[in-house]
Amino acid sequence: MAKTGKFAVGVDLGGTNIKIGIVSEKGTIVKKISVKTQAEEGTKTVVKNIKKGIQEILKSNDYKIRGIGIGAPGVVDIKKGTVENPPNFPGWGRVNLIKAVAKDFKYKVHVENDANAAAIGEMIFGAGKKYDSFVMVTLGTGVGGGIILRNKMYRGEFGAAGEIGHITIDYKGPECKCGSFGCIEAFVGNQYLVKRVKEQLQDHKDSKIWELIQNNPENLSPRIIQNASEKGDEFAKSIIKDMGLHLGAALASVSNLLDISTFIMGGGVAGFGKPLFDVIRTSVTNRVLKPLKHRVKVLPAKLKNDAGIKGASALVFYRSS
Amino acid sequence: MAKTGKFAVGVDLGGTNIKIGIVSEKGTIVKKISVKTQAEEGTKTVVKNIKKGIQEILKSNDYKIRGIGIGAPGVVDIKKGTVENPPNFPGWGRVNLIKAVAKDFKYKVHVENDANAAAIGEMIFGAGKKYDSFVMVTLGTGVGGGIILRNKMYRGEFGAAGEIGHITIDYKGPECKCGSFGCIEAFVGNQYLVKRVKEQLQDHKDSKIWELIQNNPENLSPRIIQNASEKGDEFAKSIIKDMGLHLGAALASVSNLLDISTFIMGGGVAGFGKPLFDVIRTSVTNRVLKPLKHRVKVLPAKLKNDAGIKGASALVFYRSS
Repeated sequence: MAKTGKFAVGVDLGGTNIKIGIVSEKGTIVKKISVKTQAEEGTKTVVKNIKKGIQEILKSNDYKIRGIGIGAPGVVDIKKGTVENPPNFPGWGRVNLIKAVAKDFKYKVHVENDANAAAIGEMIFGAGKKYDSFVMVTLGTGVGGGIILRNKMYRGEFGAAGEIGHITIDYKGPECKCGSFGCIEAFVGNQYLVKRVKEQLQDHKDSKIWELIQNNPENLSPRIIQNASEKGDEFAKSIIKDMGLHLGAALASVSNLLDISTFIMGGGVAGFGKPLFDVIRTSVTNRVLKPLKHRVKVLPAKLKNDAGIKGASALVFYRSS
Repeated sequence: MAKTGKFAVGVDLGGTNIKIGIVSEKGTIVKKISVKTQAEEGTKTVVKNIKKGIQEILKSNDYKIRGIGIGAPGVVDIKKGTVENPPNFPGWGRVNLIKAVAKDFKYKVHVENDANAAAIGEMIFGAGKKYDSFVMVTLGTGVGGGIILRNKMYRGEFGAAGEIGHITIDYKGPECKCGSFGCIEAFVGNQYLVKRVKEQLQDHKDSKIWELIQNNPENLSPRIIQNASEKGDEFAKSIIKDMGLHLGAALASVSNLLDISTFIMGGGVAGFGKPLFDVIRTSVTNRVLKPLKHRVKVLPAKLKNDAGIKGASALVFYRSS
């Protein structure tokens, strides 16, 4: 017998794995699989793997499926359905994922940049449900973002809006891989953060981090910094404090420009938890214009595990609502 | 006989003068007056002066007036019509200008923050006519802004959006009167600029600026810096180059966040002309993300003299279109 309620297939296209789930309209994953992306095998193989995965999850299911949502890295044209040059997908070029997938299934297919899908996921299922307008910030290798304005995704002129990672907080600051200087990503993006801490670590021989990395700086990761901080290490604490100060400066610029005062932070680095959120909150509040000060909210994302699948499935509910 | 075409009354409420004009739908001022604001006399006097001025300009006119637009400093609630705490209006508090003015005239009254009115003026009459989306930047005592997105004013959650002046370009930079640090206004706003140049001037005893200010730093102004630069003064040129670098960093953040690539610059400091525009353009282009690089445009505002009157009158044509 068919299960009641509405469901969607969410596809989280990652560089290593394609995670696929069937998600209820309340955001519950009722079935989940993962297949290898095989990005190095080229576009055709990746597309084949996506379709194989969807076929697999739809096999003998009783759910009323309303559509398929795909969250993909890279530049996405949501109308055409094209995904362009996702990082870590060699030789990808431009691929029309809607066309490629829709012809094999009877469902409507939606595709969206993964940072935007995360924002839509929080809006439909997560911490953004209560807010008409918010800015989603995803902290990871890079710093991604998505702007939700009056319950709609803000896309800008050509759909590329929300690049919060490339807001400058110090125009003479460290070089960013985008070619500019002092972007917030160049301060708090995983790679930059780890690189900077590695350098500074040489001046902090008494830090507990040394023990946690077994004296090998190659073992350094955001998680280790977090662990050291939880053990009371002053150097690790100062790093988290700086991250909050930096993020707060970027978010204050966003808030002053857009008159949006709710921020939802997700991604790996957000695992730093309360200590990081506290300093971000203080930093933004200190920096925004007076009318915004009492309104600023910095909240943790609610979709944690499988946020990618949930965000992708949320596209189906968002676009059909 | 009545003149053909549509006309509007534009009221530019300034701290010293209230400038009022009758403006055609093409943006031509057909009649213009100026009355003293008398801000120091308090709210009632200011409101009386506004109404006196409007009565005066409407006296024995044959134009088909479609409405009255008022551009006011301070926080404006365009729906209610209230203007709150405009700087340089002592004891103002909150005044409903729509109510106060509309009861004496048979026309619909619109009120708008003056920075937003400037943006709407450029959209309806000026350099923004050709562009669906652009960001207006007004350089003066402060740095103001307005965001036009798909031919609509972007207002944010509570109507306070567009505070470009308070985008940080250096989170550890000079203190801004807003309480934050390193806001672009604290770099290029007139007062801050003049103050900084005064300090630096002591190290540039050979600068042509000294002659132009007759050796009295109190005479320093943006215009003097511009004059010195036109005379080939290296120090003055370096100031303009820095301004361009600073503004470019702020605008690049805006462009990356909003995916808007057209900037229209107005206000006094924009009088620096081509040399300033060239460096701003280079700085933004160097700093924006790759897909934006070939799209970035930095244009001078078209409404120069009486931009305030024209912007205010544009509210009438914008809101009734």
